[in-house]
Amino acid sequence: MNSFGLRFKFTTFGESHGKALGCIVDGVPAGLQIDEEFIQSQMNRRKPGQNKYQTQRKEGDKVEILSGVFEGVSTGTPICMVIFNENQKSRDYANVKDLFRPGHADFTYFHKYGIRDYRGGGRSSARETACRVAAGAIAKILLKEVGIEVVSGIFEVDGIKSENLDFSYAKNSSIFALDKDMEAKQKKAIENALTSHDSVGGAVIVKALNVPCGLGEPMYHKLDGQIAEAMMGLNAVKGVEIGDGIESSKSKGSLNNDQISSDGFLSNHSGGILGGISNGDEIVTKIYFKPTPSIFLEQQTVDNENKDTTYYLKGRHDPCVAIRGSVVCESMMALVLADMLLLNMNSKIDYIKKVYN
Amino acid sequence: MNSFGLRFKFTTFGESHGKALGCIVDGVPAGLQIDEEFIQSQMNRRKPGQNKYQTQRKEGDKVEILSGVFEGVSTGTPICMVIFNENQKSRDYANVKDLFRPGHADFTYFHKYGIRDYRGGGRSSARETACRVAAGAIAKILLKEVGIEVVSGIFEVDGIKSENLDFSYAKNSSIFALDKDMEAKQKKAIENALTSHDSVGGAVIVKALNVPCGLGEPMYHKLDGQIAEAMMGLNAVKGVEIGDGIESSKSKGSLNNDQISSDGFLSNHSGGILGGISNGDEIVTKIYFKPTPSIFLEQQTVDNENKDTTYYLKGRHDPCVAIRGSVVCESMMALVLADMLLLNMNSKIDYIKKVYN
Amino acid sequence: MNSFGLRFKFTTFGESHGKALGCIVDGVPAGLQIDEEFIQSQMNRRKPGQNKYQTQRKEGDKVEILSGVFEGVSTGTPICMVIFNENQKSRDYANVKDLFRPGHADFTYFHKYGIRDYRGGGRSSARETACRVAAGAIAKILLKEVGIEVVSGIFEVDGIKSENLDFSYAKNSSIFALDKDMEAKQKKAIENALTSHDSVGGAVIVKALNVPCGLGEPMYHKLDGQIAEAMMGLNAVKGVEIGDGIESSKSKGSLNNDQISSDGFLSNHSGGILGGISNGDEIVTKIYFKPTPSIFLEQQTVDNENKDTTYYLKGRHDPCVAIRGSVVCESMMALVLADMLLLNMNSKIDYIKKVYN
Amino acid sequence: MNSFGLRFKFTTFGESHGKALGCIVDGVPAGLQIDEEFIQSQMNRRKPGQNKYQTQRKEGDKVEILSGVFEGVSTGTPICMVIFNENQKSRDYANVKDLFRPGHADFTYFHKYGIRDYRGGGRSSARETACRVAAGAIAKILLKEVGIEVVSGIFEVDGIKSENLDFSYAKNSSIFALDKDMEAKQKKAIENALTSHDSVGGAVIVKALNVPCGLGEPMYHKLDGQIAEAMMGLNAVKGVEIGDGIESSKSKGSLNNDQISSDGFLSNHSGGILGGISNGDEIVTKIYFKPTPSIFLEQQTVDNENKDTTYYLKGRHDPCVAIRGSVVCESMMALVLADMLLLNMNSKIDYIKKVYN
Repeated sequence: MNSFGLRFKFTTFGESHGKALGCIVDGVPAGLQIDEEFIQSQMNRRKPGQNKYQTQRKEGDKVEILSGVFEGVSTGTPICMVIFNENQKSRDYANVKDLFRPGHADFTYFHKYGIRDYRGGGRSSARETACRVAAGAIAKILLKEVGIEVVSGIFEVDGIKSENLDFSYAKNSSIFALDKDMEAKQKKAIENALTSHDSVGGAVIVKALNVPCGLGEPMYHKLDGQIAEAMMGLNAVKGVEIGDGIESSKSKGSLNNDQISSDGFLSNHSGGILGGISNGDEIVTKIYFKPTPSIFLEQQTVDNENKDTTYYLKGRHDPCVAIRGSVVCESMMALVLADMLLLNMNSKIDYIKKVYN
Repeated sequence: MNSFGLRFKFTTFGESHGKALGCIVDGVPAGLQIDEEFIQSQMNRRKPGQNKYQTQRKEGDKVEILSGVFEGVSTGTPICMVIFNENQKSRDYANVKDLFRPGHADFTYFHKYGIRDYRGGGRSSARETACRVAAGAIAKILLKEVGIEVVSGIFEVDGIKSENLDFSYAKNSSIFALDKDMEAKQKKAIENALTSHDSVGGAVIVKALNVPCGLGEPMYHKLDGQIAEAMMGLNAVKGVEIGDGIESSKSKGSLNNDQISSDGFLSNHSGGILGGISNGDEIVTKIYFKPTPSIFLEQQTVDNENKDTTYYLKGRHDPCVAIRGSVVCESMMALVLADMLLLNMNSKIDYIKKVYN
Repeated sequence: MNSFGLRFKFTTFGESHGKALGCIVDGVPAGLQIDEEFIQSQMNRRKPGQNKYQTQRKEGDKVEILSGVFEGVSTGTPICMVIFNENQKSRDYANVKDLFRPGHADFTYFHKYGIRDYRGGGRSSARETACRVAAGAIAKILLKEVGIEVVSGIFEVDGIKSENLDFSYAKNSSIFALDKDMEAKQKKAIENALTSHDSVGGAVIVKALNVPCGLGEPMYHKLDGQIAEAMMGLNAVKGVEIGDGIESSKSKGSLNNDQISSDGFLSNHSGGILGGISNGDEIVTKIYFKPTPSIFLEQQTVDNENKDTTYYLKGRHDPCVAIRGSVVCESMMALVLADMLLLNMNSKIDYIKKVYN
Repeated sequence: MNSFGLRFKFTTFGESHGKALGCIVDGVPAGLQIDEEFIQSQMNRRKPGQNKYQTQRKEGDKVEILSGVFEGVSTGTPICMVIFNENQKSRDYANVKDLFRPGHADFTYFHKYGIRDYRGGGRSSARETACRVAAGAIAKILLKEVGIEVVSGIFEVDGIKSENLDFSYAKNSSIFALDKDMEAKQKKAIENALTSHDSVGGAVIVKALNVPCGLGEPMYHKLDGQIAEAMMGLNAVKGVEIGDGIESSKSKGSLNNDQISSDGFLSNHSGGILGGISNGDEIVTKIYFKPTPSIFLEQQTVDNENKDTTYYLKGRHDPCVAIRGSVVCESMMALVLADMLLLNMNSKIDYIKKVYN
């Protein structure tokens, strides 16, 4: 259950404070130029310790490719990528060894498995998402071959919304802010959270551009269903919208339907998906992150024997997980689309004849 | 791609105006009493034509079990259930044969497959959800054996929110209203939509009670991820929240964390899921439906040759798909939980010894 | 666990003496002409009661398509086919209700599930293979589009081997004999089995012609692995060989290697598969069936309470299951190849560009 | 397509002459003592260069666990194991860079993927099976908890059959010979092959002891079907038998049926499997390997441009791949059974109640 995707499929492994994390990407078509610098550049966007809006834990997040690439080109065999852990301060976690941090998965892992690696959350750490970014980078290399691009940015921090969505600006913002005018306020909210030993939530927007019409597999592997799973399956995500999302549920059919002209759709309330299949318009999704559960205030909890206790957190944590989460959301979108691109090749006999005749 | 679930798995087939719809439920443990009346009672909750808040298309939605049950008991073999179509007015669709209805999947199916069954949307019709309810009924029979119950109701219609959530009341309300005091307003909104030949959106809330701690398979088959996929994969759904959902993204860690006492969690902002695994608390999810795309007002569209045209819809349609959608959401929750229940049996060696020793 | 295939996937349901059997074929590309007469003609090749070399149980095995085909053409949605049972003599099985027939699955189903449908073996009956033939017929329709053909025949009956392999002759032989000169002897062996209330084993050979090089997915979905699973998963099959099979294990590398010239391979000891991938040569496999366990001689067994007992079988049974089994083997080969054909479309970036650019 | 198993699932990666090979084992229940020395001892049984009956290529095949084990115990998270390549003589392969070695997968990989890693066969090298042994070792640790044991040995070399099957003896034989009296002859056959620059085939027998009745998932994930796939999917395997295998096809029902007494089955022609489900008796399978395709005699082939050429092989190769193959077959059996053990836990409501109530 550590795999995602059916044809462009990746499987991740590794714990926050173990020897290494990594992934196997299986189903990468042969003949792709695998640019290791590009993969590393994607890793660097997500890696911690780069500015004050992030956890101060520093990790090189250096990716090493162990297989599947020969002379710089994908061979069709599984690509294994490994990231060795460097900066492990396991002693930070000595005080959580016997208790459950509120808002974390400590409680559920312990009860499900009867054992847990308490160091930094072990497998449940957001550190696992580094593997998603590595896999996502390969997905992006594939998508680029057919012209598909995925972009992302921070839509909201602590309820402070971006009005103007400038995805180019986001690339260079230290909090991936989409709106230059709101960026300062959003940064301030994060700083306030730090000062008050608390954390804030946020929201991410991801768009996919130039997606051909036809991606998505009804009835139970629809494009919107898969995006929802990919995003909601991220730690801290509590809400996902496609297109107008919840706003749609307050609208009328006459306003919400995207009418069609010979030049394309006249609006995009649907977020580029109809009946679970891409309609050729921009794919738009919003992802909502809860505030980081790791805060530096006393909290009430129980220990492994269910005895009441309180605790103060130590360690280094992101005050707003949505920030670095945006890179992960963008990667997950790329991974979903890469899979859908391959799956859709079997949809009609015309395609089969194109390949074999 | 017409299957859902890994161990408790169902596969559906059938088109709106074909001979029949149905499903195969595979992975039903042997030894369950399969109460056909109960299954039919669940079907009846969803079936159309029962009051003015629904489409006037009448269908008996009579389920027939073809296999997998012997002398009233499940045998461990696949259970096939069929619903023959009765009330097909395919002629209603003659005028949409060559054009794409805005907000519907006509456009995307045609472009993906190069062919479409235009009668009532064919496979993309919400009629397919009858099969989900049939399968969901069997999931409920399984869940009952371990005490799990799933309830649902209408949280919002046309932006009119239910304040009081009374799931018992919802069972007998013709619009599955959760709040007796808001029901009249919500009904009025639907009536207004009918009068104005338009449609309205709505939202559903689903809860699962008595779910044991431990359900959900990290990292890529988490309970919240699967719920999100199950719900977002429903036609017309554009947003899904777990627990406090989007509200969480505007909160602080100190407020949003569910602190823990020896008597259990002190709050349930998380909606009963931590790290993708149930924590023993109530599972809570909200599902947001767009307004029915089928409206009786002139709309702009194109035909199969991409020529501009306009059209008026004929036929019989729900003014608010969220209403009957709530039964489907409830069924999908049951199906997700049944699958998770079976999957979790492999989580630890203690369970394996319990079964084999 | 009642599904086979990943992209061209079918799921079967139904018991020997239940209401109906059937299957859902999912992943059929849109745009195929679905010739119902062809499907029925394939069913007729397998159906029982046609001559004295088969069980005298008569079944029309009439296939009815419930979905997935619109105006004679596949739409890309799941194709459900149903075969209603007609000639059920459940009373024949009253005497096996409480005991286990040796060589049958009665014992294992009962112990696995704690319940069994004893009428004709229920789900474990070879009658289930009718569904494989129906699904296989659709696979053949797809394969034909790229020129692939699958043929089969009886290689051996009761140890009497066919020397000359004439697949055209087999089509019209009542025992699908490949060798006109051995047919009489093979028939005689079956007749002798009938006379002595016993049964005989046999072997089937299946060939696939015009298979393009490249089908098969290493490392764990290889063409030979999948063929082996497809065939060994048939009731009564106890051995499978690819190419020279066991003979290869007694050979030398210098004799067994298929050397290569610019005109192709100089021999075909490998049976057309290297490293689990088709090499462009004929795919050749042999499948070995045990004698029908249903014999009309007294046998020792136990009842449901594990008490010793003896029993005499009643009912109508094939004296040599390999005969009708050959049609099923041929169908399974077609189903494996159809799946591999679709899977291979994702193997290289060139194919992806062919489809999308 | 580099994964095997549904619940106890492993995914392998790596090429013969790449940086490393390895696997992720996913679905290992939490709470197992993971004995690294035991895993290494299994690796050592398969590793090359140990005596003259094997390739002289020396590899430490040292396994390193990267994840999924905490303080010596499995945590329920994926276990990644890596084997770094040490003894790479890639220059041995310079002369095969542009041509296809007969009997190898060079030809098919090149045509399927349009590119191949020619160094030692790349991904298609038998070296990949080291990963199966590592994963298999963990499967054995699980199986031991419920008393299941898997044993194996060499049944035949160059047609020289073992009469007496002594699995204890096989453990200490340098060719895993089952029959002390035939061992010398079998060794001589291998030596002769070496002297004549040729290779020989062989056969392996694998048994599983103490397998509970009920393992195997009908209809399309049967125990025998999965064993057949697992074994036939190994390079060089061309035939698989269950129980009496091909002999059964020459037998009569009256002789081949395993009659039943209150003390168990009176014979085991079926190899412990009925209807695809284990019957509680010993599971018995035979696996037939072709002679190593790597021989040191001139052979005819073509180059990448399909021009006729001849070549002499260089390098270090096993004269009889069946020998080390037996360890791999044993591992695959353990992996199949571990998966079946987990799958079967969902078979009946009694098991579900045992776990949850």
